[in-house]
Amino acid sequence: MQCDILEMGRRAKAVKAELARMGVQKKNELLTSIADALTVNEDKILAANQTDLENAEHNGVPKPMLDRLKLTPQRIRGIADSVREVARLEDPVGRVEEGFIRPNGLRIEKVRVPMGVIGMIYEARPNVTVDAAVLCLKAGSAVILRGGKEAFHSSSALVQVMRKAIAACGAPEDLVQLVGDTSRESATQMMRLNGYIDVLIPRGGAGLIRSVVENATVPVIETGTGNCHIYVDASADLEMAAAITDNAKTSRPSVCNAAESLLVHKDVAEAFLPMVKERLDQSHVTLHGCPETVRILGAEVVPATQEDYAKEYLDYQMSIKVVSDLDEAIAHIARYSTGHSECIVTRNLESAQRFTDEVDSAAVYVNASTRFTDGGEFGLGAEIGISTQKLHARGPLGLRELTATKFRVYGNGQIR
Amino acid sequence: MQCDILEMGRRAKAVKAELARMGVQKKNELLTSIADALTVNEDKILAANQTDLENAEHNGVPKPMLDRLKLTPQRIRGIADSVREVARLEDPVGRVEEGFIRPNGLRIEKVRVPMGVIGMIYEARPNVTVDAAVLCLKAGSAVILRGGKEAFHSSSALVQVMRKAIAACGAPEDLVQLVGDTSRESATQMMRLNGYIDVLIPRGGAGLIRSVVENATVPVIETGTGNCHIYVDASADLEMAAAITDNAKTSRPSVCNAAESLLVHKDVAEAFLPMVKERLDQSHVTLHGCPETVRILGAEVVPATQEDYAKEYLDYQMSIKVVSDLDEAIAHIARYSTGHSECIVTRNLESAQRFTDEVDSAAVYVNASTRFTDGGEFGLGAEIGISTQKLHARGPLGLRELTATKFRVYGNGQIR
Repeated sequence: MQCDILEMGRRAKAVKAELARMGVQKKNELLTSIADALTVNEDKILAANQTDLENAEHNGVPKPMLDRLKLTPQRIRGIADSVREVARLEDPVGRVEEGFIRPNGLRIEKVRVPMGVIGMIYEARPNVTVDAAVLCLKAGSAVILRGGKEAFHSSSALVQVMRKAIAACGAPEDLVQLVGDTSRESATQMMRLNGYIDVLIPRGGAGLIRSVVENATVPVIETGTGNCHIYVDASADLEMAAAITDNAKTSRPSVCNAAESLLVHKDVAEAFLPMVKERLDQSHVTLHGCPETVRILGAEVVPATQEDYAKEYLDYQMSIKVVSDLDEAIAHIARYSTGHSECIVTRNLESAQRFTDEVDSAAVYVNASTRFTDGGEFGLGAEIGISTQKLHARGPLGLRELTATKFRVYGNGQIR
Repeated sequence: MQCDILEMGRRAKAVKAELARMGVQKKNELLTSIADALTVNEDKILAANQTDLENAEHNGVPKPMLDRLKLTPQRIRGIADSVREVARLEDPVGRVEEGFIRPNGLRIEKVRVPMGVIGMIYEARPNVTVDAAVLCLKAGSAVILRGGKEAFHSSSALVQVMRKAIAACGAPEDLVQLVGDTSRESATQMMRLNGYIDVLIPRGGAGLIRSVVENATVPVIETGTGNCHIYVDASADLEMAAAITDNAKTSRPSVCNAAESLLVHKDVAEAFLPMVKERLDQSHVTLHGCPETVRILGAEVVPATQEDYAKEYLDYQMSIKVVSDLDEAIAHIARYSTGHSECIVTRNLESAQRFTDEVDSAAVYVNASTRFTDGGEFGLGAEIGISTQKLHARGPLGLRELTATKFRVYGNGQIR
């Protein structure tokens, strides 16, 4: 399918001002209209999804991916509910973040404004099509979506439904556009649409992120890859450490805040490793261990390579290393972490302070599962992804992080 | 001169943690030591500057640039004073921006942390070498500087002095490094030093910014180019409008917050244009006008081209256009502005509101000169540049904008 990304950029740019001027009441009206339309058009959406599922099965797409792709009446209702939830969130646009009067009488305000046009490149998950669109709309920005090809029919149906719902409110349907071409080229074109796309948010695996870093000329917020660590300190409550490790690894292994690597202080390795193995065995987690881990746990443990320590398994696998102290743990994390979420389990105050100070990640935990790195869990509302970069926003990207600021300056003739 | 940028990146990365852990007292000690050393080593710095000046004159460098390049004992004292001023600024690092307790008992804090390593590419201004270095140091980041080749000897001397002053405090001198190679290649290498440079700040003309947008794979904060507009509304106080236009254009034409383009409502064009011309004539400003401007002001006005409207003159030149209403003014700005600073002169409340709402620039003014877009003038302290991008920071980049945030999460065994 041919598709003119530049033309899509022009259309988004042409309507962004109308959205930026829209009050929160009208924006919420759009969202409610979308939520209703999703339920009304359930059959149409499910039929499109069925096509995607059949193609995917035919192409041998793996089971966990099929599950993420699949829509059901219940899932569509869930998506519609989450749209209504976004409608209930506070509108960040127009919020005065700071305001003051200068000695010369200038009144200065720093105010939140929409980004303008947000580009979103993501994997084959139909729910992201809706989640991303409504978050961008509520934040006052037009959105250009490019989803994974396996979900193309589902995403097309969902976008059609959303565009009609927007038009029914008298607003321009081009506020939400879907790239009709799921080739690599269309993604690369989006990455270079300077002057049209104000910010691009890639959400996907390491390959997509690499491609964006290499090719993008528009501003980007990197999201996603999480090689998250749990470090069990010498003073840890070992029961707690085992529970946290198990939860962080097995409660949902396919997500970015799942733990991938376990570091254990040598003084507690003999006691702790069998405890945690017993837990992880219940979920059939494959362990990749250092020689000391293998010595303690035996031949069931696969010897770990450097690649293991660098890997985001997103699966029932975990790398383990016994370290001689906190310094070695921090150094290991500095070397292998993707800067997402890391946790120390400890009773020692100095260890907790040093770990949270010195580990350079978006979220650093003391005695809690890394699985909490999430906009909803942090109480920040729905999120569009987790930023692992330092510029602009780090951690969950909520509505506020989807906006920019500007300065308004009011004078009465001041010159310098 | 050969120079290994990767090796410099390694060195910066090796020492950044030591700086990140440094308290504000120690950081201020480094800064005071640098300020003192600048005065003590005045002769050495002036001698290096003399070499640059002689080379520059020999190479036919234009006068305004020679002036920016030139150091004097007084200017060196000025630089040292501004270093002491940065030492007096509040340290953003460690500041808890938000903090709350979740229903499950998790205590979450969003805290300011250093960026890590900041890269800075800038023009031939020796003072920027010191300003940028001390702002980065105070913000807790190591810095890799690459200045313009015309100022290379001056910058080398300044960096040598700073490194010795840092070492004298027992801190690693690699916290401040200067790229010894001022070729285009060294700049491009810096733009691609992923994993070592956490953020790159280019400060310079449109050519540098374009090259960074095209080549950079590290996160970038764009700064600088300002095609700033003054719009004189139908209801404007014309005396005020003339004073603001004159100030914005002529008080310092070489800087990015200087006005480059004047838009005048048709209803006041006949009255206003001769008034403002009289003022601008005193500074010998060349006017590039639309046909209506030429009709009103006569043949002294050069007919304006589209290039004129897009141009950042940075000189005693200004483009002028008569517009039929506020909408045309806003549309013109949307088309030609670089998103830096724009001003409306008006007495009409609705015009003021629409202009500040709809003009999408870092700073929008009502009845005040665009020349106020400056960290010091905004009361934000010393700045490293003016961001014209929407991500991370927009407007003056002060100490706070040179830092990142992270989430600290404290639990007592919470799992999800």
